[in-house]
Amino acid sequence: MINVTMSDIVIAYTRIRPYISKTPLLYSPDTSAETGSEVWFKMESLQVTGSFKIRGAVNNIMLLSSAELERGVVTASAGNHAQAVAYAAGLKKSTAVVCVPESAPMTKRAGVLKLGGRLVVYGATFDQADAKAHQIEQETGRKFIHAYESPETIAGQGTAALEALLQEGDFDVILVPTGGGGLLCGTAIAAKAVNPKIKVYGLQTNTSPPWERSFHQKKLDLSCEFKPTCADGLEGVITWPNVELALTCVDDIIIVDEKSTRRGIRWMAEKHHYMIEGASATCLAALFENRTLLEGKKILCMITGSNIDLDRFCTIAMED
Amino acid sequence: MINVTMSDIVIAYTRIRPYISKTPLLYSPDTSAETGSEVWFKMESLQVTGSFKIRGAVNNIMLLSSAELERGVVTASAGNHAQAVAYAAGLKKSTAVVCVPESAPMTKRAGVLKLGGRLVVYGATFDQADAKAHQIEQETGRKFIHAYESPETIAGQGTAALEALLQEGDFDVILVPTGGGGLLCGTAIAAKAVNPKIKVYGLQTNTSPPWERSFHQKKLDLSCEFKPTCADGLEGVITWPNVELALTCVDDIIIVDEKSTRRGIRWMAEKHHYMIEGASATCLAALFENRTLLEGKKILCMITGSNIDLDRFCTIAMED
Repeated sequence: MINVTMSDIVIAYTRIRPYISKTPLLYSPDTSAETGSEVWFKMESLQVTGSFKIRGAVNNIMLLSSAELERGVVTASAGNHAQAVAYAAGLKKSTAVVCVPESAPMTKRAGVLKLGGRLVVYGATFDQADAKAHQIEQETGRKFIHAYESPETIAGQGTAALEALLQEGDFDVILVPTGGGGLLCGTAIAAKAVNPKIKVYGLQTNTSPPWERSFHQKKLDLSCEFKPTCADGLEGVITWPNVELALTCVDDIIIVDEKSTRRGIRWMAEKHHYMIEGASATCLAALFENRTLLEGKKILCMITGSNIDLDRFCTIAMED
Repeated sequence: MINVTMSDIVIAYTRIRPYISKTPLLYSPDTSAETGSEVWFKMESLQVTGSFKIRGAVNNIMLLSSAELERGVVTASAGNHAQAVAYAAGLKKSTAVVCVPESAPMTKRAGVLKLGGRLVVYGATFDQADAKAHQIEQETGRKFIHAYESPETIAGQGTAALEALLQEGDFDVILVPTGGGGLLCGTAIAAKAVNPKIKVYGLQTNTSPPWERSFHQKKLDLSCEFKPTCADGLEGVITWPNVELALTCVDDIIIVDEKSTRRGIRWMAEKHHYMIEGASATCLAALFENRTLLEGKKILCMITGSNIDLDRFCTIAMED
């Protein structure tokens, strides 16, 4: 099993601290009034490259030898991890090849190029882009930087929750938008080390919910239906190692409705004037839909990123 | 002449600190690359109530005696100051009456009511609402909280620049969106105290530029044309006292094009995924238009607020 401890997260934090933003932790009176919970937002949407992914990427890059840096890195990502790896590689004057599927949003592709990454657009799905990245790893000796499933990545992502908990330590619940589960596991490990009573819930949309059965049945189950989702950062299949790790530290998986997620994007735009991407909005959806579970609790929402195409944002913002 | 010193600003900062957010100061690689300057954003758009106005409002409220707090406060404003005063009054369990003209948008009225303010809708113009507020001051003994022209307000607004300069002290230029001039004067006083070489420029749009002639001719001159502007926070006539004060500490007034300002809103949405209001976007407009003056300089942009209606934002965001 993947082994990540609080100590790994703390050491990762000291390693990455000079290269990342300490993002704001903001209390939301509006969301609290609407939902009956005490709601706080950890604004990783304001992080360097627009998402928390920079934390894991920098943690990986800083651990490479000079020979590895010279050969460069390669990764596969639907978006935010791609930008993060391109940025992190640049910090050490290394080079990054990033494989993305054809579905990757333009804003995220442009971000990779702007940050000096080399873009390979390959395949209809993340799996195909991922296979391409591993092929490049084999052929070129570039180090593969996993988007969610390595101790270095998970420890790096855990620093976002650590940072929030060092500021407000008494949360009852942490809501974590969940794709591959790197942030989910890192958050849960940090949270349980600070206070084992904190409940950590992973969030997915009902349009792409492979964590639900896999977590509840304690074995990988990808039999769910996958449909298009505004939460592109969470989209796609998952693998066993992070589910196995999550079973040791995560309390539950909550599946939210695609429509509530779109409402969450609108809510943040109308009430707070924040542009957030769909993945982040699953926190709002969970609050809207799970009143009984979350009411009266002090809730930390991981607002994971802001990388949404402007036209898509405005389409969703103008709905209803 | 109004007298505000660096000492007033520092004392104001210690007074308001527990009630406001320390907003992020963010370096913008994209804007720097586009403009040839080193561009930083002071994100008062993420401030409590969505604008810097809370700083002046809280500084005023914290100075009131318990008898004054019991009688409450009154102000005239259809915008950010109104919400800030309503919020600040609530902090001390006082009450705020806010006079707005009949033209005030429903969303801004709703903002005041949500924060516990009492709304008085009076008159066709801001001047009439302002006169009504002064009448209420006379009749009820409520303390009038000026939106931009009192030492307490100016000192409070100056804390935003102070906060930024304590983080990065070596700016060459500060760009300040300017309506009544409270933020402009407070910023200039703080900046010159830190380093007299810092240039402080007030920004207005060519659709509402009363500062231009008034500042350059050193006397109040409201003969400019006033047209509708996306920078509603900067709109309208001005008064002499802040111009007089600005002449002692501000370097110049820069008038930017309405179209560049709209482009500034789009730029921030596309490149950074920040929703900002028109007033804030004059900083981008100044950078786009004044390359010769600003190129190669380290620039602090006061991103003053985020309170823009979502439909207006999306209309502007989707232009071109």
